[in-house]
Amino acid sequence: MKPLGPIPPGYIAIDGELAISGNMASALVESAGETPLFVYSRDMLTQRVAALRAAMPARLAIHYAVKANPFGPVLDHMAGLVDGFDIASGGELAIVLRAGIDPARVSFAGPGKRDSELEAAIIAGVTLNLESEGEAARALAIAGQIGRKPCLAIRVNPDFDLKGSGMKMGGGAKPFGIDAERVPALARHLIAQGAEWRGFHIFAGSQALSADAIIETQGQTLDLAARLAEETGVALPKCNLGGGMGIPYFPGDEPVDVARVGAALAERFEALPEVLRDTHFCMELGRYLVGEAGVYLTTIVDRKVSHGETYLVTDGGLHHQLAASGNFGTVVRRNYPSAIATKFGAPVEEEASIVGCLCTPLDRLADKGGFPRADVGDLVAIFCAGAYGASASPAMFLGQGPAREILV
Amino acid sequence: MKPLGPIPPGYIAIDGELAISGNMASALVESAGETPLFVYSRDMLTQRVAALRAAMPARLAIHYAVKANPFGPVLDHMAGLVDGFDIASGGELAIVLRAGIDPARVSFAGPGKRDSELEAAIIAGVTLNLESEGEAARALAIAGQIGRKPCLAIRVNPDFDLKGSGMKMGGGAKPFGIDAERVPALARHLIAQGAEWRGFHIFAGSQALSADAIIETQGQTLDLAARLAEETGVALPKCNLGGGMGIPYFPGDEPVDVARVGAALAERFEALPEVLRDTHFCMELGRYLVGEAGVYLTTIVDRKVSHGETYLVTDGGLHHQLAASGNFGTVVRRNYPSAIATKFGAPVEEEASIVGCLCTPLDRLADKGGFPRADVGDLVAIFCAGAYGASASPAMFLGQGPAREILV
Repeated sequence: MKPLGPIPPGYIAIDGELAISGNMASALVESAGETPLFVYSRDMLTQRVAALRAAMPARLAIHYAVKANPFGPVLDHMAGLVDGFDIASGGELAIVLRAGIDPARVSFAGPGKRDSELEAAIIAGVTLNLESEGEAARALAIAGQIGRKPCLAIRVNPDFDLKGSGMKMGGGAKPFGIDAERVPALARHLIAQGAEWRGFHIFAGSQALSADAIIETQGQTLDLAARLAEETGVALPKCNLGGGMGIPYFPGDEPVDVARVGAALAERFEALPEVLRDTHFCMELGRYLVGEAGVYLTTIVDRKVSHGETYLVTDGGLHHQLAASGNFGTVVRRNYPSAIATKFGAPVEEEASIVGCLCTPLDRLADKGGFPRADVGDLVAIFCAGAYGASASPAMFLGQGPAREILV
Repeated sequence: MKPLGPIPPGYIAIDGELAISGNMASALVESAGETPLFVYSRDMLTQRVAALRAAMPARLAIHYAVKANPFGPVLDHMAGLVDGFDIASGGELAIVLRAGIDPARVSFAGPGKRDSELEAAIIAGVTLNLESEGEAARALAIAGQIGRKPCLAIRVNPDFDLKGSGMKMGGGAKPFGIDAERVPALARHLIAQGAEWRGFHIFAGSQALSADAIIETQGQTLDLAARLAEETGVALPKCNLGGGMGIPYFPGDEPVDVARVGAALAERFEALPEVLRDTHFCMELGRYLVGEAGVYLTTIVDRKVSHGETYLVTDGGLHHQLAASGNFGTVVRRNYPSAIATKFGAPVEEEASIVGCLCTPLDRLADKGGFPRADVGDLVAIFCAGAYGASASPAMFLGQGPAREILV
């Protein structure tokens, strides 16, 4: 039997069924109409942001990275909780504008921005996190052509990475941002060209669980921001410290100790150099804010045995849960947290693999896990489905189409 | 410099530009309106099927696995070339029916068929490749309820796998098909229940390049089909031998020697046992038929250097080319065949990485390859994009949306 990842706190059983925001899984499926279904918990989103705010210095703004989960109702709810939004494409710009989010709260990072995306962002008044000198030149030219003052920040490729992070975004050659040593010259150029100067975006990595690593990286980030601002010769208006905080997905993973991260950051904030004295700092988080608040529900359509192994075949699969299937950015496949939602909390009775309905051996949601005995019609829950689920999976694969999504 | 995969034969330069079906890449982009763009070559599809037919015994029918590329015009074109179609979902059933394909030519495999999908297939008259005894019971019950005679075949989980295949579909416990030893009893039951008996679907693996391995597997498949038909006690009406033939993606890969595969199969067909004497045989191929006929074109929107490494940042990425980015079913990332389409055939001048526009380090289309010097506005071509590209990638990731597709 292979271990399953840890189920996030806050999920309880009501009458033997998984409940999300107080609603039984089967009732949620009935109201949504069918599985597969992503369910996001409004309460959990609220609580997560509140807990983070309580742990962090009041001076730190909290931004939401839309790419983690762009579902409209989630975005609407987050708009009332966070201070800003980070987008990564013209498509996401359209999404936040449609949601009525104030463009002054939005910044746009991404290494391959098209001219049309730069123009739309400048017209909207969104801050552009510039990824290269070439992109800076294009943004300035477009702003000139349309007679707008662009709001510009520089994304810095830092000289360090976030240790233990699932995705390293710094510490060497990278397609993201501008190498630190070239940043001051570009910053001075942008200011000289009359841009609205917004400062730095320094993103060293994501999905780290070690408070020590995050504290170290935040310290390095503040040092780098101070050094670059000094060299630029202008007090830094804003600094996006990046994200970095991950969530536990796999057996043995422990949640980030945010109290320690917050305390360390508060200490650093007490001793900032002059050039950062009035800087507006933010952290930009996606997965950390929404990941654990989502559950993917899918129905068992077949139960079969092959050469002594039991398979629970569901109507869902990697077309909605690519990362859970182990096919997105992971080398060694490990099990996400999962459960039989209609027998939640019941004792383990058998070893079974939960597979999707796709005709490919890649489509495995849980490999040889321990579950209570489940049968056709039972619901399976895959946890940690709030981030990089629906939108980060190949929904059209094998003609399947997207899953339903609800916020409750 | 890291090697690139082999560019499939048939792609030539016209005036220094990649040409597809005689059309220059830039002209194709202009007529399509924008990049990213998938271009599929009608001629190459035609030639591939013709070459395969020439190599294979006339008795072997050629089926197309729709999942490899369900783009409407490709499907329409394939309908005039192949003998049958394999689908993998109710969504694909709707696609083939919309394309006007005769349901009698269609079979439906997939481990997680919902009742609604079984019903739609039975009403349409499509052959169901049953994946379990439970699915068989559901299909018979539904057919009884709606008063139709279902066309039923059994997908067999063979006791052997296809050696060297990219995806093993047999040889042990699997979620696909029914373990061989349980097949005869189920076949007799289906026949006794009055189903239209269609025979066996035996799929041992896919994406193999070794003729020897494919020949061995086809031999084992025929032996197994004969044994199971004998045990069933009825001459076998149809037998889907599966696919298995892959295409070269990576440095060092060699194409399948189809002439040898065809000759070996012809020899086996000469010496079939009585129970297979009148069997209709087919091979079901997806990737092999369409993979090399497709090219993904994307525009360079930025050229940047970080710590001495050159990045060509494109307006495409893993949201259309998940497998090429190394994030789908591969453990070690290797480079797909790729080229600067607007400098096709020009000598290598520099080492560069081609990355997508997504804000993730996973979004790399070519890692440290050798290319002629390219700049903003040049087109990049990723080859082998005809199969499992557009539909097998997370198009909505980071708000990007699907690429355009054309058949020329």
